[in-house]
Amino acid sequence: MSLKENTAPSTIVFIFGGSGDLNQRKLTPAFYNLYLDEWMPKQFAIYGMGRTAYTDEQYRAHLTDGYHFFSRRKTLAAWQEFSDHLHYLRIDAGDAASYSEIADVIARHKKEWGADTHVLFYLSVAPQLVPEIAARLAAVLDPADSRNIRLVLEKPFGHELQSAERLNHQLAALFQEEQLYRIDHYLGKQAVQNILALRFANAFLEPAWNNRYIDHVQITAAETVGVEDRGGYYDGSGALRDMIQNHILQVLCLVAMEPPASADPNEIRDKKVDVLNSIRRILPEEVHEYAVRGQYTETARIKGYRQEKNVDPQSATETFAAVKFYVDNARWQGVPFYVRTGKHLREKSTSITIRFRTPARGIFPGPTPNRLTINIQPGISIRLSMQTKHPGQSMQLAGSSMLLDYNETFAQHGAGEPEAYESLLLDVMNGNATQFMRADQVEAAWKVVMPIIEARSGHNPADFPNYIPFSTGPHAAETLLSQAGHQWAPLAKVG
Amino acid sequence: MSLKENTAPSTIVFIFGGSGDLNQRKLTPAFYNLYLDEWMPKQFAIYGMGRTAYTDEQYRAHLTDGYHFFSRRKTLAAWQEFSDHLHYLRIDAGDAASYSEIADVIARHKKEWGADTHVLFYLSVAPQLVPEIAARLAAVLDPADSRNIRLVLEKPFGHELQSAERLNHQLAALFQEEQLYRIDHYLGKQAVQNILALRFANAFLEPAWNNRYIDHVQITAAETVGVEDRGGYYDGSGALRDMIQNHILQVLCLVAMEPPASADPNEIRDKKVDVLNSIRRILPEEVHEYAVRGQYTETARIKGYRQEKNVDPQSATETFAAVKFYVDNARWQGVPFYVRTGKHLREKSTSITIRFRTPARGIFPGPTPNRLTINIQPGISIRLSMQTKHPGQSMQLAGSSMLLDYNETFAQHGAGEPEAYESLLLDVMNGNATQFMRADQVEAAWKVVMPIIEARSGHNPADFPNYIPFSTGPHAAETLLSQAGHQWAPLAKVG
Repeated sequence: MSLKENTAPSTIVFIFGGSGDLNQRKLTPAFYNLYLDEWMPKQFAIYGMGRTAYTDEQYRAHLTDGYHFFSRRKTLAAWQEFSDHLHYLRIDAGDAASYSEIADVIARHKKEWGADTHVLFYLSVAPQLVPEIAARLAAVLDPADSRNIRLVLEKPFGHELQSAERLNHQLAALFQEEQLYRIDHYLGKQAVQNILALRFANAFLEPAWNNRYIDHVQITAAETVGVEDRGGYYDGSGALRDMIQNHILQVLCLVAMEPPASADPNEIRDKKVDVLNSIRRILPEEVHEYAVRGQYTETARIKGYRQEKNVDPQSATETFAAVKFYVDNARWQGVPFYVRTGKHLREKSTSITIRFRTPARGIFPGPTPNRLTINIQPGISIRLSMQTKHPGQSMQLAGSSMLLDYNETFAQHGAGEPEAYESLLLDVMNGNATQFMRADQVEAAWKVVMPIIEARSGHNPADFPNYIPFSTGPHAAETLLSQAGHQWAPLAKVG
Repeated sequence: MSLKENTAPSTIVFIFGGSGDLNQRKLTPAFYNLYLDEWMPKQFAIYGMGRTAYTDEQYRAHLTDGYHFFSRRKTLAAWQEFSDHLHYLRIDAGDAASYSEIADVIARHKKEWGADTHVLFYLSVAPQLVPEIAARLAAVLDPADSRNIRLVLEKPFGHELQSAERLNHQLAALFQEEQLYRIDHYLGKQAVQNILALRFANAFLEPAWNNRYIDHVQITAAETVGVEDRGGYYDGSGALRDMIQNHILQVLCLVAMEPPASADPNEIRDKKVDVLNSIRRILPEEVHEYAVRGQYTETARIKGYRQEKNVDPQSATETFAAVKFYVDNARWQGVPFYVRTGKHLREKSTSITIRFRTPARGIFPGPTPNRLTINIQPGISIRLSMQTKHPGQSMQLAGSSMLLDYNETFAQHGAGEPEAYESLLLDVMNGNATQFMRADQVEAAWKVVMPIIEARSGHNPADFPNYIPFSTGPHAAETLLSQAGHQWAPLAKVG
C-alpha cells in the first residue's frame, strides 16, 4: 500500500482500556479505516492493554467482531494484514511492573524503527485513574523524548472547575501541555470542522456575521435515547457537565470566534478561549433567567429518569438543559446564544441555527428573516432560508431556501463520512492539536457553567421530573426564548 | 369564474398590429392565461386591429392557432368563453375615420360598463408609426379620462439619444408620462423580478453587496440563434442597441441600485435612473478599452452575418458586444460590471454572476472566492459557490455550492412559470409602472451606450467578421477581462 505524504513517522500506540467498549467500537475501527485510506505510518504497532487475559489471537478476534459491528466500512480485505499490527498487553494500571513492560516494548521498537519513533498513549479509563497512570508513565519515559510522546485524555476533564484545575495541575507537573491531547469527539465531526471553512473561507458571510445582522443563535444537541446503562455515571453528572461544558460550548466557540490570524493550533485555540472568556458570567441570583433544567418523567411505556438503573429515586440531576448565553464582545454584544440539550427528546438532531435580523422595510412589508441552519447530525448540510418573489403575478414574497448537502460533497469525492475518531487520531499522530482542548480551554468552559451547576445544588427535587419523553423538553425552555420574542427551531430530523 | 380581489376595473384593450405575430404568439395567449388564472376583469374586451380583412370569427380562429402553438398551457377548456371577448377592427392607422371607430367602440362599452372603464392601447407597430398613432388617438380621446387611458409602447425607444428625446417629447405633448408604459419584456421575467426580492428581502446579503466584498459583476445574455428573418431590422440596430441599451442595462440597474424607500413605482425607477446616471461616461478615445464588438463569420454549414437576408454584405453592424461599465458611486467605485451579449454563441443562457473578493488569509491559504450566479434563462436558479472543508482528513478546502432551484419553488406553488407578457400586461391593467421604462430611464440608458455606438461609425469593416458561430465570441472579449485578472463565467446551459 502506498502512503500519503503527510503520514506520521513510525508510531507505537498504547491503549489503556484496550479490552473496553470504546476501543472495540471506535478506536481500532478508526485506525483500520485510516490504514485503508493510507494514512497510517509505514511502521506502527497498536497495543491494547487491560486486565482481561487475552492472547494476541484472542484480542484480534475480539476486535474483528467489533469491526464487523461498528466500522463504517465492512471490507475485510486488508484486515489480516492490518491485524498483524495489533497486540495485547495484560497489565495492571496500578502496578509498576506493567510500566516497565511498556518501557521494554518501546525500547524494542525503537531499536528496530529508530530513536524518533513516536509513542501515543490513549487513556480510555475511569477519570480517577488518570493521575496515577500519568505519573507512572512519566516515571518510566525518557523526558528527552517529550517531543515524540503524546497522551490522549478523555472527558470528563474534572467534575467541576476545582477538580479540573487540580487535574491540569497534576498533569502539568508530569508532561508538557503540547503532549496532552484532551479529546472531544464533537470536534472531530466533519460538519463541526466545516464551520471554520464556512466562516473563514467564504467572504460573503463575513460582513453579516455580527450583532448588526444576526438576531440570535441557537445550538441544539437532542438525543432520543435515555441514559441507557450509564445511569451510574450520569446521575453524578447531568446534561450541563455531560454536554454543555464541553461539546456545546466548543461548537459555540466555533460560531462566535474572531478570525484566527493563522492555522496554528494555539492561535485557533486562543481565539476560542477568547470567546469563553467573553461569555457573560451568570450571577447566582440570575440563574433562573438564563437557564432551564429538566428531567424526563415516567410514562406507561417509558421508564422515568428516576426509575433508571443506578439512578437515585429522588435524583435532582438534569437530563435536559437550556441556557441563554451572551458573548459580551464588540461582535456579539446583545445577541443571545440559546443552547439546549437533552435525553429522550423528540428527534436525534444536532444543529446550529443562525437567525438573521429582519431586513429593513422598503419595497417589501415585513419579510421573514433569513435563517442559516448548519446540520451536524444525523444529516450534514447547510441550509439558508431565504425570501424570493412569490411565483406568478404580484410582487409578494415566498419562503425558499438554498441547500448545501454535504453528503453530496462526500459522494462527489467518492468517500464516506470519516468517523470523528479517525480524524482526531490522525491529528494526534500528526501532532496537530487544533481540535483538542487545551488546559485553559477546559477551565474557561468550567467557569462558564459553574454558576448554573452550583445553583443546581439548591434546586428543589420536587420540581422534577418536568418533561415527557419524546417531547421538546420542559415548557420553561420555550418561555426562555418566547419572552424575547424568539422561538426554538423545530426539533426535527434533518437530512 | 371567481375573480382575484385586485383585478382591474372593466377594461377595453386595443391592439395595433392585431393581425401580427406578437399578438398571436404572446399578447392574446398572455391575456388568456391571465383569464385562466382569474386575473382578468369581470368585464373586458380585446380588439385586434389591423389592415388585414378579418371577421371576428376569422380573427378568433387565427388566434386559436396561435394559442395552440405558443401558449405555455394547452387547455382549451375556457377558450370558447374567453374568445367571446375577442373582436377585430379593420383599420388604417393613417386614416382619421379609423380613430372615430375606436372612439365609438369606447363610447359603447362605457355606456354599458360605466364611465370609469379603462382603455389600454398596445402599439405593436413599426416605430415610425408611433408618433402618428399617438397623435390621432389623443385627438379622439377625452383628456378628462387620462387616468383611465394607457398606452403600451414597444422598443426601440428611439434609434439613438436624439431620436429617443424627440419621441419622448412628442409623446409628452399628447399624454402624461403616467399613461405611457414602455415595455421591456426582460423586466417581466420572474427571475429578473426576483432580483429585487433577493436583494431587499434578505438581510444576510446586504452588507456584502458593495465594493468592499464584491470584486466584479458579469451579465451575459447569449443566444444560439443568428438574426434569422430579422436581418432588415437588425442591420440598422446591432447588439448594443438591441440588447445592451435596454435589457442588459436594466438588469444591471437591478443588481446595482440602492435600496428603494418604498414600493412606489417612481421610487424604484428613480433608484434605477440613479445607477444609469452614475455609470462612468466612456470618452470616444477610450472606447477600445471598455468595449468589444463582434460579428459572426461564415462557416461551411452556417451563414455568416453578412450573408444573411436583408443584411449589407459589407455590414459593420455588431452581432456581439461586450462592455466593461463602472458605476462610479460610493457602493460600486472600482467594481467592473462586465456585460456581453451575442448571437450564434455556444449556449442560450442569460445569467448574472457576482464574484466576491478573495477572503482574507488566515486559517486557509488562498481560498477560491465565492460566486453568486443568478440564472435567468433557460433555467431559473440561484447558485452560491462556496468553500467547504474537503471531505475526509486534513483541513483543506473543496468547492461546493448552495442551490436555490426556482423551478422547484414554482412546483411547490403548483404553478408553471408565467410568461413575461402576462405579468407585464397585468401590471398595465393594474396601473403599476414599476417594470416599465420611464422617459428619463430610456434617455439615461442611451447616454450610457452612445459613446460606444458613435465610435462604431468609425469602425473599420475590415475587422469584421471576427468570431465563429457557436463559439464564445471574439477573442478580444476574453482579453477585456483577462487584462484585469478576470475571466468570463463558462458559457454553459444552466438548469
